[in-house]
Amino acid sequence: MTDEQTRRDDRAHVFHSWSAQAQIDPPVIVEASGSHVTDDTGRRYLDFSSQLVNVNIGHQHPRMIAAIQEQAARLATIAPAAANDKRSQAARMIAERAPGDLSKVFFTNGGAEANENALRMARVHTGRHKILAAYRSYHGATAGAIALTGEPRRWASEPGMPGVVRFWGPYLYRSSFHAETEEQECERALAHLRDTVAAEGPEHVAAIVLETVVGTNGVIPPPDGYLAGVREICDEHGIVMIADEVMAGFGRCGEWFAIDRWGVVPDLISFAKGVNSGYVPLGGVVISPEIAATFDDRPYPGGLTYSGHPLACASAVASMEIFEDEGILEHVRTLGAETIEPALEKIAAKHPSVGEVRGLGVFWAIELVADRQTREPIPAAAVGAVAAACKERGLWPFVAANRVHVVPPCTTTAAEAEEGLAILDEALAAADAHVTA
Amino acid sequence: MTDEQTRRDDRAHVFHSWSAQAQIDPPVIVEASGSHVTDDTGRRYLDFSSQLVNVNIGHQHPRMIAAIQEQAARLATIAPAAANDKRSQAARMIAERAPGDLSKVFFTNGGAEANENALRMARVHTGRHKILAAYRSYHGATAGAIALTGEPRRWASEPGMPGVVRFWGPYLYRSSFHAETEEQECERALAHLRDTVAAEGPEHVAAIVLETVVGTNGVIPPPDGYLAGVREICDEHGIVMIADEVMAGFGRCGEWFAIDRWGVVPDLISFAKGVNSGYVPLGGVVISPEIAATFDDRPYPGGLTYSGHPLACASAVASMEIFEDEGILEHVRTLGAETIEPALEKIAAKHPSVGEVRGLGVFWAIELVADRQTREPIPAAAVGAVAAACKERGLWPFVAANRVHVVPPCTTTAAEAEEGLAILDEALAAADAHVTA
Repeated sequence: MTDEQTRRDDRAHVFHSWSAQAQIDPPVIVEASGSHVTDDTGRRYLDFSSQLVNVNIGHQHPRMIAAIQEQAARLATIAPAAANDKRSQAARMIAERAPGDLSKVFFTNGGAEANENALRMARVHTGRHKILAAYRSYHGATAGAIALTGEPRRWASEPGMPGVVRFWGPYLYRSSFHAETEEQECERALAHLRDTVAAEGPEHVAAIVLETVVGTNGVIPPPDGYLAGVREICDEHGIVMIADEVMAGFGRCGEWFAIDRWGVVPDLISFAKGVNSGYVPLGGVVISPEIAATFDDRPYPGGLTYSGHPLACASAVASMEIFEDEGILEHVRTLGAETIEPALEKIAAKHPSVGEVRGLGVFWAIELVADRQTREPIPAAAVGAVAAACKERGLWPFVAANRVHVVPPCTTTAAEAEEGLAILDEALAAADAHVTA
Repeated sequence: MTDEQTRRDDRAHVFHSWSAQAQIDPPVIVEASGSHVTDDTGRRYLDFSSQLVNVNIGHQHPRMIAAIQEQAARLATIAPAAANDKRSQAARMIAERAPGDLSKVFFTNGGAEANENALRMARVHTGRHKILAAYRSYHGATAGAIALTGEPRRWASEPGMPGVVRFWGPYLYRSSFHAETEEQECERALAHLRDTVAAEGPEHVAAIVLETVVGTNGVIPPPDGYLAGVREICDEHGIVMIADEVMAGFGRCGEWFAIDRWGVVPDLISFAKGVNSGYVPLGGVVISPEIAATFDDRPYPGGLTYSGHPLACASAVASMEIFEDEGILEHVRTLGAETIEPALEKIAAKHPSVGEVRGLGVFWAIELVADRQTREPIPAAAVGAVAAACKERGLWPFVAANRVHVVPPCTTTAAEAEEGLAILDEALAAADAHVTA
């Protein structure tokens, strides 16, 4: 197929996610390798998006490709009711890396289905119906996952699944609690959550679900103590704590599971993306022994045709092995602390449009404002201009609302990160032009 | 990994779909080829299940494997916002094979997500909320898909997504309408649907969703005229007609889309399974130009990270090409009409436990009854005994409720089908023993 036909067929036949179909002109991507993608004009971009923050291991890792090719030749697929070596091995390896005694894995095709099943497990396990979920969250787009989602992408799917109650999470830069320090924000956010649980009736609350580090809605790491406080509230009332690590897990934060940064053990963890960098669709839920035991003699009321897909599981096994052999988690921690963070601090000091930079590992946000005093978000046109300036300079950015997220693959070298950050530094002039005060 | 470790890790770490975890002993499957799967004891089974009625092209088809290996080496994954050759080609090929002027494809990871997005499209397109869905249906296990589902697997997920209204579909053997002929059943089922629409307020009904041929709930082909009648009701009231072809499509009924058997053009078709035989997780929705146009200048409010996954799309392209090169659709029609149907008629005549056989292509049900007069379903123990007798004889069956479904791969040879049907014939003695009248 020619690139021209690819483009023509795309416009005529491909219906794209989250888009006004007549208003997009999707770039034809013909090649990808490591930290780079190449379009049909031969233009090569440094990928500072990891696509949808999922290609953690980088593009076309040779060992990943080999593992997929080998498993395809052995056994591409088999029904969920069977046992299979790669399915078993992937589940064991994930359980071994999971916090605390979390020990069983229910595999899905992606993150939305992972959250769907986590909420189902919590409801059946507790016999309760309400789920507390945060504003400024994204949990997926199926009916249950979108009902958990706290941001505007939910609105078009309402009225949706009942039983979801929303609370505000910690976010010091735009505090819902008029806090001035991280400690205050933490304490007040926990008080607010505690009040919400009390007002909803703790004995009716099945679960509290939250992204360990809020992702697309701002890359907002929790203040120290917050996750431990949530765990405490859950313990007090027999509420299931669900950590959504679809974006934060498997390397993004320099840990297998981001929650390890704060030493907290949730009851359920949903994952996808980084587990195998999306080379084959895969997601899942890691399950505590207590919740798993609920379904020892009572059928679990959920399933899907491709649960524990051998090709997907084989790529997850390979990915975990590669992460260890190449020391990728350590690399992410170093890259975050020694390259990205200092560069972003310099960017923040230099550009009046930068209100705040925050993050960890390879998971960062630059929040752009029109006015540093009022913190008024910069207009969408400014963010568009920054994105365009990045692309002109060979950098593929990730933008969301008034932010640029710095979310390159975990395997990005320090030199590549520096190159991308230097481009970002230049591109932000386009935002500075929109600063009003 | 040894088979023993596979088994041990499975029991310790794999959480299985729809199962009481302590009550299962999953067979370790180590190999599959064509119409056969092999377990760790070296036992080889003729697959009369196509796993979950999805491996339509047979196991480990060499050209499918080669296509996956080749695409893995080229480009395993890229974000949904890009255009990509295999994504474009798969969408065009599906659109070319779809009925009427259906022309755009939204790709998902599987059938549940396909139905989730079909219902979202229908609601946004019409600005209406109610969805009519049939009892005796299965549409998937995410919150929206399970709310559409008409059978008991829904119960544990209730109260679920609001707005679903249920109706009874045609099923002459257990008629909800006291009908005695196919014509009567058709006419009365349409009158019932028409009454239900009227009672719900046609201007509030976004969509009628139904499986073109009911799948796991009985392999129930619609009587001639039924689907045309549904189309007419939809046209009269501006209601979106959604055909769920997750199980019935892509070869199972000897057509690309089962609905072509009845010459009806729905507005949306959900698909998965047979599109690429689950070699890589894939599903999607085929969309009419009118519905697609709703989202030309208004963003479609749904999406997923792996939409249009290149590896999955490459395998779908290969599968459609193989189907044509090998004449698989024609083979399915012949196999159904000349081998399976006559053999099942003989089985029905011979075994007092068989109440009815029905189906088309490689999509058949044997409905087992304790009493042919009252049509009382045979007890579960009898079905279990038949399944065990099949396995002892080297046949892997698909059983559901009081039925054995005959759902081998589309590539099953006439000799293999005869072999499997002969085993079934023997195994049904175990059901005959439970006949009470």
